[in-house]
Amino acid sequence: MFFYYFARTIKKPFVKTNFTPGPSQLYFTVESHVKQAFREGIPSLSHRSKQFELISAQATQGIKNLLGVPDGFHIFFTGSATEIWERSVQNLVEHSSFHFVNGAFSKRYFEIAQQLNKKSSKKESSLGQGFTDYQIPENTELIALTHNETSTGVSLPMEFIHSFRDKFPDALIAVDAVSSLPYPAFDFTKIDTLFFSVQKGFGLPAGLGVWIINDKCIAKAESLLAKGINIGTYHNLPTLYANAKKNQTPETPNVLGIYLLAKVVEDFLQRSAHTIRKETEYKAAILYNTLDSHSLLKAFVTDKSSRSQTVIVAECGTHVEAVTKVLQEKGMYPGDGYGELKKTQLRFANFPTHSKEQFELLVDTLEAFK
Amino acid sequence: MFFYYFARTIKKPFVKTNFTPGPSQLYFTVESHVKQAFREGIPSLSHRSKQFELISAQATQGIKNLLGVPDGFHIFFTGSATEIWERSVQNLVEHSSFHFVNGAFSKRYFEIAQQLNKKSSKKESSLGQGFTDYQIPENTELIALTHNETSTGVSLPMEFIHSFRDKFPDALIAVDAVSSLPYPAFDFTKIDTLFFSVQKGFGLPAGLGVWIINDKCIAKAESLLAKGINIGTYHNLPTLYANAKKNQTPETPNVLGIYLLAKVVEDFLQRSAHTIRKETEYKAAILYNTLDSHSLLKAFVTDKSSRSQTVIVAECGTHVEAVTKVLQEKGMYPGDGYGELKKTQLRFANFPTHSKEQFELLVDTLEAFK
Repeated sequence: MFFYYFARTIKKPFVKTNFTPGPSQLYFTVESHVKQAFREGIPSLSHRSKQFELISAQATQGIKNLLGVPDGFHIFFTGSATEIWERSVQNLVEHSSFHFVNGAFSKRYFEIAQQLNKKSSKKESSLGQGFTDYQIPENTELIALTHNETSTGVSLPMEFIHSFRDKFPDALIAVDAVSSLPYPAFDFTKIDTLFFSVQKGFGLPAGLGVWIINDKCIAKAESLLAKGINIGTYHNLPTLYANAKKNQTPETPNVLGIYLLAKVVEDFLQRSAHTIRKETEYKAAILYNTLDSHSLLKAFVTDKSSRSQTVIVAECGTHVEAVTKVLQEKGMYPGDGYGELKKTQLRFANFPTHSKEQFELLVDTLEAFK
Repeated sequence: MFFYYFARTIKKPFVKTNFTPGPSQLYFTVESHVKQAFREGIPSLSHRSKQFELISAQATQGIKNLLGVPDGFHIFFTGSATEIWERSVQNLVEHSSFHFVNGAFSKRYFEIAQQLNKKSSKKESSLGQGFTDYQIPENTELIALTHNETSTGVSLPMEFIHSFRDKFPDALIAVDAVSSLPYPAFDFTKIDTLFFSVQKGFGLPAGLGVWIINDKCIAKAESLLAKGINIGTYHNLPTLYANAKKNQTPETPNVLGIYLLAKVVEDFLQRSAHTIRKETEYKAAILYNTLDSHSLLKAFVTDKSSRSQTVIVAECGTHVEAVTKVLQEKGMYPGDGYGELKKTQLRFANFPTHSKEQFELLVDTLEAFK
């Protein structure tokens, strides 16, 4: 303990805030949870022990409470959200899926479906824009939506996501919410599967994907299996489900990651999902207001209904370096623009770990930049 | 270093030693590496940063040095060794693989090949025994060997593993060394792929698989892909290889896990692979000697050439509970027997984290049990 206090004391004078959209700043309780984990022997805990099952149950129930996940949905752990892109197509699509592509990550989800030899199709939006018209082929088995495009800061409006169930009652609806959860409040009667990875909004070390999925999806995977279609092995849905019922995993999982997830979800629940949402909206509003009234900077996403609340992209033109410099002088580290947009954009994550005070300092510093 | 010695000193009064074969006792340096990781911001480090690439290169080069991996072999990271079972069949087998099954884990590797719709076959040995005769079908594309059966403590002799290259020059040879590495010294001219997970011999928190693989395997995967065969997506061999060349990973990986692996491998290299091997053999020898001369206990594996050096299984008959009790009183926690064998067996991991002194105390305590 002595070392720990000593190490923290010498660090304090310069507080660094990481606004990169992922992996992002750790949630501020993580380091102390890791210390507790070592005291409890979690990093070497057997995943076949009762203690692991309790931790797994705690993480699962915590997520259900936090996100309002109803009965009939289940929670599985994978290595990453990238894995869930693959597993969801493999288990839920015999012939074709349809993908709304509004940036680099939704595009990869589509490409993964193609690599799995599915006859998938897509509707692509212009960079930074949402979707106005689209045509989904008949017999589409899975409609894939990326709630929040980490690359461009475009978010699909909730009404848009929730509009497909009635129009396409036979399709499964998959939502990638990697960089928006725990912020969005989905209506689980309108979607069938939802997933995220822990290194973004949950502020945890990378190496764990979380897959929320309903009985209809599991039945679909079973029907593919019955037809002799390859739906994968240890991480196919029937196997994940059979294990999850016992709060188990098919393989030796990232036990420490699941423990930390359980703990951080507990912290979130103490703050309440409602408070986290309201604070997220407040922080997003002050940053968008600043960008909207700024003389040199502006918000990349102009349509307000498509603006992400959790990854806010600033169009900085030729000022990228200068803005980065003034922010870093105050200990604030923005994320680069994605890919080619690196030259002209900065991205700001707005996750539960980012406090109102940090956002106020960010906004004040940007406003002073003239 | 000061912290580390101090930490060991204050811990001494009641030292708990975990002999379960995995997840096992952490390597004794892990906790201090985790502290250092937090000081360096590793748990939230971007996997697209230069710093991550350096860490990844350090882990990769360290493993190559430790295990004597020659040029023409590459190292990839996955979520688990279970994943490597699946990916290896998916990427290396068009029609059929052949599996030597000598316990629960080698059996699962075989079953995964079947689940992937391959026409695979197996040779099964009696529990606790090695293989004498076998018939491998012509045109077998992959021969799968489990060096060390964690469930039964049966190890395949190195001469056996190395005997297939000359007999089956066209087959790829895959070795699962999950619970034996870093102990065994493989001849890489006789095998094509080798894999392990970090929570056993490397004494790290679970959630990372390490896949060592040669150019011939990558070429095979590419040839399957060219035929339009589904070899998976983000974790197929060509994609893993394209990323690994840049010390990158296709998805956001377990960054902290890779950092800790790099650090522990560095610790192992300082001790030297030779020292670790000699110490492993010494510890195994004194435990087998004790079991061989005991009046109530005996080694489960009777054939000395099939005896695992890293997972030693004691046949305890009706004494399981009594032996466990006397060991636990001295802070030593044996592993249960696997599955049904729980009632009559105990398993003892002999990994680099287990010191000679701990093994001497273990042996003394078992000898006093009459």
